[in-house]
Amino acid sequence: MKFNSALENIKVYEAGKPIELVVREYGIEKDQIVKLASNENPFGCSPKVKEAVRAIIDNMALYPDDSMVKLKTALSQKYGIQSNELVIGAGSDQVIEFAIHAKAHGGSKVLMNSVTFAMYEIYAKQVGAQIIRTPSREHKMDEFYALYQEHRPSIIFLCTPNNPTGDGLLASEMIDFISKVDSDTLVIVDGAYMEYARFKNPAYAVEPKELIERFENVLFLGTFSKAYGLGGMRVGYGIAQAPIIEALYKVRPPFNITTLSLEAASVALYDEAFVQWCIEENFKEMARYEAFARSKGIDVIDSYTNFVTLSLPEEKNSSKIAQELLKKGMIVRDLSSYGLNAIRITIGTRVQNDRFFELTDSLV
Amino acid sequence: MKFNSALENIKVYEAGKPIELVVREYGIEKDQIVKLASNENPFGCSPKVKEAVRAIIDNMALYPDDSMVKLKTALSQKYGIQSNELVIGAGSDQVIEFAIHAKAHGGSKVLMNSVTFAMYEIYAKQVGAQIIRTPSREHKMDEFYALYQEHRPSIIFLCTPNNPTGDGLLASEMIDFISKVDSDTLVIVDGAYMEYARFKNPAYAVEPKELIERFENVLFLGTFSKAYGLGGMRVGYGIAQAPIIEALYKVRPPFNITTLSLEAASVALYDEAFVQWCIEENFKEMARYEAFARSKGIDVIDSYTNFVTLSLPEEKNSSKIAQELLKKGMIVRDLSSYGLNAIRITIGTRVQNDRFFELTDSLV
Repeated sequence: MKFNSALENIKVYEAGKPIELVVREYGIEKDQIVKLASNENPFGCSPKVKEAVRAIIDNMALYPDDSMVKLKTALSQKYGIQSNELVIGAGSDQVIEFAIHAKAHGGSKVLMNSVTFAMYEIYAKQVGAQIIRTPSREHKMDEFYALYQEHRPSIIFLCTPNNPTGDGLLASEMIDFISKVDSDTLVIVDGAYMEYARFKNPAYAVEPKELIERFENVLFLGTFSKAYGLGGMRVGYGIAQAPIIEALYKVRPPFNITTLSLEAASVALYDEAFVQWCIEENFKEMARYEAFARSKGIDVIDSYTNFVTLSLPEEKNSSKIAQELLKKGMIVRDLSSYGLNAIRITIGTRVQNDRFFELTDSLV
Repeated sequence: MKFNSALENIKVYEAGKPIELVVREYGIEKDQIVKLASNENPFGCSPKVKEAVRAIIDNMALYPDDSMVKLKTALSQKYGIQSNELVIGAGSDQVIEFAIHAKAHGGSKVLMNSVTFAMYEIYAKQVGAQIIRTPSREHKMDEFYALYQEHRPSIIFLCTPNNPTGDGLLASEMIDFISKVDSDTLVIVDGAYMEYARFKNPAYAVEPKELIERFENVLFLGTFSKAYGLGGMRVGYGIAQAPIIEALYKVRPPFNITTLSLEAASVALYDEAFVQWCIEENFKEMARYEAFARSKGIDVIDSYTNFVTLSLPEEKNSSKIAQELLKKGMIVRDLSSYGLNAIRITIGTRVQNDRFFELTDSLV
C-alpha cells in the first residue's frame, strides 16, 4: 500500500529509555535503575495532586469535560489571560502538532535552531514542510533574522530554555527579533522549561501575557511534564491571541486529555509552593554537577532547566559512555543523534545524583 | 494570520454534554443529573482496574513506556496477533487521525456511510480530502461498491455496529465487499462497539485476526472507551498488517497514552468476566427500551451496541425533546446534526433507565 510521500522522510522520535525496557534488556532489578534521561521531576508531583486523582478514580469511565473548564480557569488565573487564549494539548507536543497542521503544508518552510527539540522537525515533515536550521548551537537572533529574510518561513520555533542543551535566550533579544517578523509568520516560543529559567534569572523569562498582548502572531507553549511533575499524564498548553487558538481548535481531536489528567493538572496549579521547592532543590543539585564537570575538565553548558548537558572532549565518545552507564542501570541521554558529542543528564534527587557521580567518575 | 485553507471547511465536533456543563448551565445538582449521551459503560470499569491505577499513582511524574509492552502483550494475546500488527491511540479516534494523515491528502477521496461517526469527516477535511457518502442510512455494500468504482477513494470507512444509529452489518457481506476493493485502498473497519455485536449475534462480528490475515489493506479499530468502561482514559487501538502499522507509527506522537491509561487498559483485558457481565446487563435493559418504544409507537433501530436510537415521528422534534430532557437533568444525544429526527440514548443502569422512561413518558 502506498502512503503519503511525506512519510518517507520521517524518522521516528527516539524517546528516553523507560525503566521497564532496561529491566527487560539488561536484566537489572527495577529498584537498581536510575533514570535521568527524560527531564522528569525527581520529586514527582504534589501530594495534593495524588490525593485528588485518587478521589476521582471512579470517573475513569466518563469522557473528560471537553470544555476543560477547571483547568482553563486555573491556567487563566495563573497567567492573567482569558480562556479563549488557551488550548490544551496532550503534552505541549500536541500543541506543536496542532500548530503545524493548522499553518504549514507541503512547500511551507519551518525555521528552527541548529540543535533543538526533535519533534518540531518530525511534525513539520509529516505535512511535507521544509526545515531550515540556523548554523549555531545557541539561539542567535541575528542568524534567525537572516534566515527569516531569506526564506520567509511560515513558522519559526524558538525554544527557550533550549532542549536538549539547556541554554537560555534573553527575553529582550527574543522580543526584538519577534517585533521584526511579519504578522503572518507564526512564532512559537516553547517554554517547556520556563519555570526553571524564571527562577534562575528573570531576564531569561518571558511572560506569556505580555507576549500575546504585544504580538498577534506568537504562540507560547508550557507544560505540566517538567516542573509540575506530571510527565506521565500528558498535559501541556498553548497561549495565544484568540484567532490563533480558534484555528488550533479546528485540528484538535475532542477529548484529547484524560479525565484524570485534567484533574491532576488543575490541582497541580494550586500547589505552587511544592513546585518552587522542587526548582530550588534542582539548582542546588545542579551546582554539584557543575563542580563535578569542572573537576573533570569537562565543559558543561550553562543550564536554565532541570538538566545539564556535558560536552565531552574529543577523545571521549558520548554513545559509548551512555551505553556503559546503561549497563550499570543509569539511564542518561546520549546526544549523538543531535550531532553533539555530549550527554544530557536530568538533575535527580541527591541520592540519584551521587550515584551518577560514582558511576561516571571512572568513565570521563 | 492565514491558516491552511482546509481549515475553513471544518466544523468542530460536538461532544455529548458533560455533567459539569449541565450543572453550570442549568443549576441542577450534580447527583440529580443522568448522562446517557456518550455511550459510556454505566457500570464503569472493573474494580481490578481501579485498584491497579491506585497502586501506580506515584508514577504520574514518569513518562509512559512508549513501547507499551504490557498493553501490546495483553492485546496480542487477546486477538492472537503480533505486537507489530498493533498501534495504540488516545481513543480509536486518534488511530483514525493517524490513518488519514498517513494515507489521505488534498485531492484524496474518503468514502463513508451517509450517517456515521462524525470524526471521519472532520479528520478527512483537516487534510483537505473530499468526502463521499452513500445514500442510505444503513451500510449497504452495493452502494459502497458503486461509489468505490466511481470515485476510487483512498480510504473507505465501515463502521459496524454503526454509530450513532446502532445497526450492524453482516460480517460476510462486509468481507465480500472488501475482497472486491483494490489493495491500495485502505479499508477501515471501526469496531468500537464490536464486543456488543459479538454477544448479540456472532454473524455481525468480525475477527480482526481473520481480517488482517486475509487482507493487506484493512485496519480494524477497537476501543477501551465503551465495553471496557474507560472512556475517560483515552485508549483505543488499530490492528493491521505490519506495513500499515509502520506507516501509522510515523505520524504517531510519542507518549500518546498516559502512564495511568496504559495500566488501566492492560489490567482491563484481564477481567473479561466483568465486561461480559456488563454486556449481558446492557441487552437486558435494551429490551426495556424496545418495549417502551413499542408502547409509544416509536421506531427503534435494531441495536448491536450499548445505545438505542429512537426515530421520532414527524410531529415530534428531536432537538426539542432533548432540550426538555436536559432541563430535567437527563442528557441524551439529539441526532438532528446528523440529519435525523432521532435521539440516541446510552443504555444506563436500571435506575437510570427508569428515570429516562419516567421523564420521557409525557414527551413522546
